[in-house]
Amino acid sequence: MHDFYMREAIAEAKKAGDAGEVPIGAVLVYQDQIIARASNLRETTQNALTHAEMLVIEEGCKHLGSWRLEETTLYVTLEPCPMCAGAILQSRIPTVVYGARDPKAGCVHSLYTLLNDSRFNHECDVIEGVAAEECGELLTSFFRNLRQQKKLRKQQQPES
Amino acid sequence: MHDFYMREAIAEAKKAGDAGEVPIGAVLVYQDQIIARASNLRETTQNALTHAEMLVIEEGCKHLGSWRLEETTLYVTLEPCPMCAGAILQSRIPTVVYGARDPKAGCVHSLYTLLNDSRFNHECDVIEGVAAEECGELLTSFFRNLRQQKKLRKQQQPES
Repeated sequence: MHDFYMREAIAEAKKAGDAGEVPIGAVLVYQDQIIARASNLRETTQNALTHAEMLVIEEGCKHLGSWRLEETTLYVTLEPCPMCAGAILQSRIPTVVYGARDPKAGCVHSLYTLLNDSRFNHECDVIEGVAAEECGELLTSFFRNLRQQKKLRKQQQPES
Repeated sequence: MHDFYMREAIAEAKKAGDAGEVPIGAVLVYQDQIIARASNLRETTQNALTHAEMLVIEEGCKHLGSWRLEETTLYVTLEPCPMCAGAILQSRIPTVVYGARDPKAGCVHSLYTLLNDSRFNHECDVIEGVAAEECGELLTSFFRNLRQQKKLRKQQQPES
């Protein structure tokens, strides 16, 4: 089941990558139905808040008519950053499933464990590592391509 | 100067309180101009993301046409939660000024110091305690009223 929904999140991540965005995708599931799906859209929207998780949380609130996303599960290809981990707490999402760890900004296991701090008024069940290799490889190859393109552009520039 | 802009944030917080929302307000300043102002709107919108800080960040991105809110200062009446602190990092806001500490969920000084962690790709200058007493009193009296109303409703209910 987790694999099935993570594949849908991966499909969203690929859409982001095709649009020149860092390839991260998310889906929100309620009663065995995907009620929201989104790709990271930061460059397209030029809005710092438009990470994939934030977009599915917003859409989920609209769908359920409540800021409390009880009985939902969030699937996301990359370990959430502090903003998205905080939004997960704010919306009371009970279960979070993610793919690859983010050693640079991840706030679920890597730098902090924000979703499991009993001082906050909400804690989550967290499952990590679902299709982690594929989720991570999407990012690795995206940044590899970016570096290659940058190098190529540099080589093509006439010497000054 | 900080007092002037904090008063504007307090005016926003009062609007929230008048609307039955937890009284928290924020303004975003760029080149000595307020480019965004907002009240916490969580109950009104039933959207978990609509904290005052998030709303001014979104509006600020629109105003500047960029997800990078460079050269801006965020004023907020209460110490930001993890979501809002994360959004401040994501939008690269250089300076944050807040009023009262939030011992239950504050992530700038109280529970975490997310805005000053050199492992993230951004750090902020933070000024705390501007009009702290008034900012805190708005919240204290809001919750006091809420408890009184609850008690009154209980007393008015016929015994079953």
